[in-house]
Amino acid sequence: MYIQERKKYQLEKTKQFVIFTQSGLVALQHRGQESAGIVTSEGVCSKSFHVHKGMGMINNIFNDEIMRKLKGNLGIGHTRYSTSAASEEVNCQPFVVHTAHGALAVGHNGELVNTESLRKMVLGRGVGLSTHSDSELITQALCLNPPEGEVNGPDWPARIKHLMQLAPLSYSLVIMQRDKIYGVRDPYGNRPLCLGKIVPIGNLASRESDDDDDEAEGWVISSESCGFLSIGARYVREVFPGEIVELTREGIKTIEIVERPNKKRQAFCIFEYVYFARSDSIFEGQMVYSVRMQCGRMLAMESPIEADIVSSVPESGTAAAHGYARESKIPFAEVLCKNRYVGRTFIQPSTRLRQLGVAKKFGALSENVKGKKIVLIDDSIVRGNTIGPIIKLLRDAGAKEVHIRIASPPLKYPCYMGINIPTREELIANKLDNVKLAKHVGADSLTYLSVEGLVEAVRYRMDNRESNYIGHCTACLTGEYPDELPGDLDW
Amino acid sequence: MYIQERKKYQLEKTKQFVIFTQSGLVALQHRGQESAGIVTSEGVCSKSFHVHKGMGMINNIFNDEIMRKLKGNLGIGHTRYSTSAASEEVNCQPFVVHTAHGALAVGHNGELVNTESLRKMVLGRGVGLSTHSDSELITQALCLNPPEGEVNGPDWPARIKHLMQLAPLSYSLVIMQRDKIYGVRDPYGNRPLCLGKIVPIGNLASRESDDDDDEAEGWVISSESCGFLSIGARYVREVFPGEIVELTREGIKTIEIVERPNKKRQAFCIFEYVYFARSDSIFEGQMVYSVRMQCGRMLAMESPIEADIVSSVPESGTAAAHGYARESKIPFAEVLCKNRYVGRTFIQPSTRLRQLGVAKKFGALSENVKGKKIVLIDDSIVRGNTIGPIIKLLRDAGAKEVHIRIASPPLKYPCYMGINIPTREELIANKLDNVKLAKHVGADSLTYLSVEGLVEAVRYRMDNRESNYIGHCTACLTGEYPDELPGDLDW
Amino acid sequence: MYIQERKKYQLEKTKQFVIFTQSGLVALQHRGQESAGIVTSEGVCSKSFHVHKGMGMINNIFNDEIMRKLKGNLGIGHTRYSTSAASEEVNCQPFVVHTAHGALAVGHNGELVNTESLRKMVLGRGVGLSTHSDSELITQALCLNPPEGEVNGPDWPARIKHLMQLAPLSYSLVIMQRDKIYGVRDPYGNRPLCLGKIVPIGNLASRESDDDDDEAEGWVISSESCGFLSIGARYVREVFPGEIVELTREGIKTIEIVERPNKKRQAFCIFEYVYFARSDSIFEGQMVYSVRMQCGRMLAMESPIEADIVSSVPESGTAAAHGYARESKIPFAEVLCKNRYVGRTFIQPSTRLRQLGVAKKFGALSENVKGKKIVLIDDSIVRGNTIGPIIKLLRDAGAKEVHIRIASPPLKYPCYMGINIPTREELIANKLDNVKLAKHVGADSLTYLSVEGLVEAVRYRMDNRESNYIGHCTACLTGEYPDELPGDLDW
Amino acid sequence: MYIQERKKYQLEKTKQFVIFTQSGLVALQHRGQESAGIVTSEGVCSKSFHVHKGMGMINNIFNDEIMRKLKGNLGIGHTRYSTSAASEEVNCQPFVVHTAHGALAVGHNGELVNTESLRKMVLGRGVGLSTHSDSELITQALCLNPPEGEVNGPDWPARIKHLMQLAPLSYSLVIMQRDKIYGVRDPYGNRPLCLGKIVPIGNLASRESDDDDDEAEGWVISSESCGFLSIGARYVREVFPGEIVELTREGIKTIEIVERPNKKRQAFCIFEYVYFARSDSIFEGQMVYSVRMQCGRMLAMESPIEADIVSSVPESGTAAAHGYARESKIPFAEVLCKNRYVGRTFIQPSTRLRQLGVAKKFGALSENVKGKKIVLIDDSIVRGNTIGPIIKLLRDAGAKEVHIRIASPPLKYPCYMGINIPTREELIANKLDNVKLAKHVGADSLTYLSVEGLVEAVRYRMDNRESNYIGHCTACLTGEYPDELPGDLDW
Repeated sequence: MYIQERKKYQLEKTKQFVIFTQSGLVALQHRGQESAGIVTSEGVCSKSFHVHKGMGMINNIFNDEIMRKLKGNLGIGHTRYSTSAASEEVNCQPFVVHTAHGALAVGHNGELVNTESLRKMVLGRGVGLSTHSDSELITQALCLNPPEGEVNGPDWPARIKHLMQLAPLSYSLVIMQRDKIYGVRDPYGNRPLCLGKIVPIGNLASRESDDDDDEAEGWVISSESCGFLSIGARYVREVFPGEIVELTREGIKTIEIVERPNKKRQAFCIFEYVYFARSDSIFEGQMVYSVRMQCGRMLAMESPIEADIVSSVPESGTAAAHGYARESKIPFAEVLCKNRYVGRTFIQPSTRLRQLGVAKKFGALSENVKGKKIVLIDDSIVRGNTIGPIIKLLRDAGAKEVHIRIASPPLKYPCYMGINIPTREELIANKLDNVKLAKHVGADSLTYLSVEGLVEAVRYRMDNRESNYIGHCTACLTGEYPDELPGDLDW
Repeated sequence: MYIQERKKYQLEKTKQFVIFTQSGLVALQHRGQESAGIVTSEGVCSKSFHVHKGMGMINNIFNDEIMRKLKGNLGIGHTRYSTSAASEEVNCQPFVVHTAHGALAVGHNGELVNTESLRKMVLGRGVGLSTHSDSELITQALCLNPPEGEVNGPDWPARIKHLMQLAPLSYSLVIMQRDKIYGVRDPYGNRPLCLGKIVPIGNLASRESDDDDDEAEGWVISSESCGFLSIGARYVREVFPGEIVELTREGIKTIEIVERPNKKRQAFCIFEYVYFARSDSIFEGQMVYSVRMQCGRMLAMESPIEADIVSSVPESGTAAAHGYARESKIPFAEVLCKNRYVGRTFIQPSTRLRQLGVAKKFGALSENVKGKKIVLIDDSIVRGNTIGPIIKLLRDAGAKEVHIRIASPPLKYPCYMGINIPTREELIANKLDNVKLAKHVGADSLTYLSVEGLVEAVRYRMDNRESNYIGHCTACLTGEYPDELPGDLDW
Repeated sequence: MYIQERKKYQLEKTKQFVIFTQSGLVALQHRGQESAGIVTSEGVCSKSFHVHKGMGMINNIFNDEIMRKLKGNLGIGHTRYSTSAASEEVNCQPFVVHTAHGALAVGHNGELVNTESLRKMVLGRGVGLSTHSDSELITQALCLNPPEGEVNGPDWPARIKHLMQLAPLSYSLVIMQRDKIYGVRDPYGNRPLCLGKIVPIGNLASRESDDDDDEAEGWVISSESCGFLSIGARYVREVFPGEIVELTREGIKTIEIVERPNKKRQAFCIFEYVYFARSDSIFEGQMVYSVRMQCGRMLAMESPIEADIVSSVPESGTAAAHGYARESKIPFAEVLCKNRYVGRTFIQPSTRLRQLGVAKKFGALSENVKGKKIVLIDDSIVRGNTIGPIIKLLRDAGAKEVHIRIASPPLKYPCYMGINIPTREELIANKLDNVKLAKHVGADSLTYLSVEGLVEAVRYRMDNRESNYIGHCTACLTGEYPDELPGDLDW
Repeated sequence: MYIQERKKYQLEKTKQFVIFTQSGLVALQHRGQESAGIVTSEGVCSKSFHVHKGMGMINNIFNDEIMRKLKGNLGIGHTRYSTSAASEEVNCQPFVVHTAHGALAVGHNGELVNTESLRKMVLGRGVGLSTHSDSELITQALCLNPPEGEVNGPDWPARIKHLMQLAPLSYSLVIMQRDKIYGVRDPYGNRPLCLGKIVPIGNLASRESDDDDDEAEGWVISSESCGFLSIGARYVREVFPGEIVELTREGIKTIEIVERPNKKRQAFCIFEYVYFARSDSIFEGQMVYSVRMQCGRMLAMESPIEADIVSSVPESGTAAAHGYARESKIPFAEVLCKNRYVGRTFIQPSTRLRQLGVAKKFGALSENVKGKKIVLIDDSIVRGNTIGPIIKLLRDAGAKEVHIRIASPPLKYPCYMGINIPTREELIANKLDNVKLAKHVGADSLTYLSVEGLVEAVRYRMDNRESNYIGHCTACLTGEYPDELPGDLDW
């Protein structure tokens, strides 16, 4: 999800505007590869929006001809991976509707936990919903005239606030109208959202102080900061939990900060650090890569082992492996070479080929492996299907010992807030303990990082802040959800 | 290019055969992404071949339905990147023709240096050629009845030998007939080709000794060894320069070893080590990754510099960077995060976005960079367009110094033997010396590895062998070609 | 538009159900080639619908795999040509929404004349509309909770009736719910809609009497009867103007007949007879072909001419030409041969090729033409671009005289009820009278059928009925619209 | 197949040239819908050809972008339906090869009867053939250096003549070189080929006399004359059996007329008249439509019947039906309405839907049918699967009697010369006589035209010519082939 408002309405710049949106979106492609879309608005001079959405990867959805049609100096984009609704054309985002108060486009990252009750309310008001997507639900809920006495008419911030009170978890939203964009982060801060400022290209260097006097050429709001440099923007700050921020040609403005119910704690998804985010993104003032490296250091402290080399499953475990190597003083060396071209797997009629499947994806660097005791780091284990064949690959290449170290705690619980995690039955950590799992995958030993270790790694650089791990959502690891879940969810 | 002959004709195994070929081909995808093809033969029972070819990546060309049609227990495959002929459907390989002596399929890696004279000869014999591809030329040249007195009739080895004498450079070939496959490497050994043995899956572990008593379940011949494990094959040896090797259901057999003209030296392409091959492949008894690491060590010895960290442009420079780090004792740290999803670039109307282009591909890991003196390693510089923006990216992220070290010598001359290298005018090394280039790209310093250093790195593990660098082709670096080039080539 | 309810829920029949829908739809393809869709329902056992829609022709949208997914024993289909909203994926019909009272699918043929006021009402109730299509508007209007005091809850017939009172013109609708389908025709009967009965295949022969005792195997409702035989159905009757008919597994039932406002006359679109409908369809108890033939007879009486042969522009004018020939006793002969394969026209750089364009579509049967005086019949003239080149074609082939006779009156006014007619400026009949038009196109003479003649031809077989031509909508010919048009329409 | 040479090399005209070729090809689309291709040559100024070929219909293969690439003022095109080789991309025509004497493009209509021996000869000369197409075979045979003593060097007419002596049946060829096109018709004249002259657009009217003084703006050679008007060309004459005609910028010239072996008779395919050709084409000085009409007259004389109306299966039987009606004085009336949009047929799980299949393609015009005795004319019966359901359709619509009259004799023998006719076992005429077939399909009576009747109809206008029906090939009706067939053909 990605939005932008440019301050100066010069024709030459307007022409290139959508490329900003598309470039920013490419930097968020890792957050969703199922479908993508961009909606632009010409702002003052035009009544309607320009929309293009499609299934698949951004580079296959947009081409020069389509880009030319997406005119405007204001736009939002979205890349999707499906949580609630199916992966189909109709569920592509942003959703665009015509309302009594002008056109509206909505992009949503996250997943509502009280979808069912909100859906009943919207249907009960006489609205037909064309999909099962909670993002369409949010859109139509924003359109509904609020009950008498509350907000009425085209007061969109009031409508947004009303919705946030009805559904406090979990979303980051971009909401575009003719000439403005609202950025919204849920009161728990469960999903990330941050602000960037487009500056003259000579001023892109990062600053020591926060004292930022440069005139903005535009503003951008995004789930992650990793794409900012690719469009010439500088990171400014996170959107606060519960904040409604407005972007117009006049600049950015905080409209309101909606409180969490019952004084609950903030609950930023810790899995963004572990797995989901791109390693050069910044959350809570720190780079994701640094947190991952710190996880590796914690892991080395918690689960030391004598070995010749530390290595990783590329590329997911590399940052943690470098952390482990530094802490343990064991040299880092690459042991696996990744084939970037592996895609579809065909029906495989023999057990043999199934067993060899991982060798299509990774090649062993045999001269680095032969006769070595190896500590192999990965970021997480979900179903546990891949690590076994990798260990066999290394043993066939001559490894003497293979010790697995996982730079996150065991995944045990489902997520209802926007991360697709398999059912409890499929999660290997619910079936086998460390010793049995080590045996199952053929490792000489296998240990996970502890929850405390992970939380400490995440908070390592946040010395001055309140240190209580309810401040991060660890539900998938601990089962402690940030808010009550509706009774009808089947877990 | 990839071929295989299975020894036992069991139906169950025959069904899965083509998956071996396709899997092996996926491991060679880095050698060519323009088009690919597979031809299979049912051997004893069938008169004709099954063929499927297409433009683009292997995963988009083959699907389960197509795979089911590719029956047989014998097959060759090819992935292409174009050197001589255009990137079009008609030039996809393998080429298949019906001849007076049965069907023939040919896959070719390399580029003929005397195409023009061979082409004139073939056309003069009354053959119409449907493409400008030198691979079709090779195929039709094999079909031609040799002049009286020489070989005649269906003696294919003699025809192959005859062709090798007419055109000694540069090719590795797989030539399939109804029930056998010939593997052919040019007399100079310019292009790589190696043999693997398919063994029971429990026996895949690499061996200390060459004493290999396992019964083969099949044989495979391939440009590189990197895909062998993915099909359950064990590396056996290289095909010798000038060797014609025959694969049948009886096993493998060397038919002949054709000599180089005028006692010239062997000339294996050194650029395979530098850039082209996958790092887990084995050439001349050593792993490509190890050679690249050794290049980094040599570079550290030749061009030392004081710095805080050694890093690389991922993933091309990483092996050398680890070598440089070990030799220099400067710690290795990642500084760039690669966006795997960058593809097509759209028309960019502003200078600004063009300058920012590289930021779409790489993100700076700012916390690893800030305030640091960095040695940045890459494998090679061709046009020099990318390294400048990368340096700016690092400086904007706070790097104090950026020193570029290139793990290969300057590229100065065109290759006529299978590697696409731009014209001399486009090669930046022909325009700017180290000092000027450093200034041009904004580096604090920039040096290349010397030719001697590269050759020494390549020969580091070959103590017992004849140590003369004419044994490798370094034409693109030195202009010393392994054989005379025909006069009509315009360089 | 096409629907069906099968009485017997046998598995074997259910499997084939969607093929009935698809076959029926193919017979309606002439009514719209822009997009098509089918929605099926499994009735008792399933909560949701199966939907497939796409751009283009039916045969390209549906394939066996898609058909297998469209399970159920109840379904509606739609083929679209755009009148109000753009020709885009989002506007494909049927529209499907989830409502507080179950799923709802709507297919719409026609065009609302009071779109603007209805749209304002729906938006004002807090609903976001995702398209400009008046068919989505109808769907959401049906979902809306009616005002207090009127219908409430899931009483769909009451909701439909309410809508019909808000918007009396122009539509035929099929509205599907879980286990029933409503067929709805607007109170003016402007768009056609008829009922068919699926009978055992041996009983398909048409009956003299209306006494139809066969047990129905299912029921079908369709814009035209022409597809009935292709699915084994027998024509039963038209849906009455204003009728809401319900199809369930129990059979068909008239729910209500909504009256026209202010005792206005019925207004069935006369252009369906002239141009739009397939010639084997039955409207008002008569075959369209017979009416067209009768138009030809009337034309011969109104505009006789001495000639050697009567012919037609195939295939649009052939029925009328046979009528003209019979009445005038001049023999019919074909003079033009149609190339069925003409499709796209490429950019034509020369005037020459533009003039020859019609020769791509038609070939002159020169031996039938040479030296002949020809009366050439066509069904209508819109912009007048085609008839001139056809006349030249016949003259080049040796025709002595070419007299044009048009089997309908001049088109002079726009239609706001579902037929796409160009603007008044583009209609050639608003620019040139008969004499000038004849000269313009190079005809020896040119006359139209009179409005009276057309109406008489349409009523020729309706002796017993009220004979007043306000009973048919002739707005495009006379400017007399069946109801007041909203002020904001720009004509 | 379609070719053209323009006399004047004006840039403006050159730009539009390929549109001439494409337009002409569209008029030949009925001759083949599997694949199509166009090759153009820039003549004097260019070394090589521009080629585009593809599977499917012309309108889907060519677009504006492709057309722009097909530069030149000389070109040949081809539409293919497969006889010998499979319907695959590689078999698309024209075939283009590079030869020792320049580029060569060949388009072939027909089928060689001595493929096997010619193929052995070409393979034996050391040429690899990439397809089983006899069109590739012709191309490579033209490239081969003829035996000593015969023609040698680039004397293409001599090479063509040599080929015609090796393979006298059956083909029409267009052979393009850099700056000229040869049109070639086999010595038996089995396949049609004719010449047209591009004239100023005002001069297109057909002429009484052959005295044609207009200066040509270009020349065209085509299998049929039906497309001439669409490119502004006037029919000139047929290419003579055995003629090699050369088109250059200087005009047209007969190079040679190769004689038939053993004084055999001319053998123009009579099935072109019956079925294959478009009805406005001219063969042997007469319009195909007129011959078909005459077949209807002959049929009325041979097989009269008392009836109310004569009708046809549209559109194949319409010309003959008009002939039958004129001769018998029974009025013609349409009884079937064709659905132009019927395409693909999906898997049909029930017998019921299979029986109803024809109702998807045709609708009965019930008011024309009810209570009538009908004579229904069709052009031919092959497998006999369609006529039965059509008769049932008419009976269900109320027909009193249905008498089938086929305007050609029974199809009994395979064709080896370019027409795809099913095996003898599949031909219904080899299984059932008239009486049994009538019963089988449910007709009140069924008769064919006699062979004598057909031949008389074909020769009706050729009073002055030698009247011997060996002058037409009637092999599929009589088993009398124009020349000996090779022994290895399996009939």
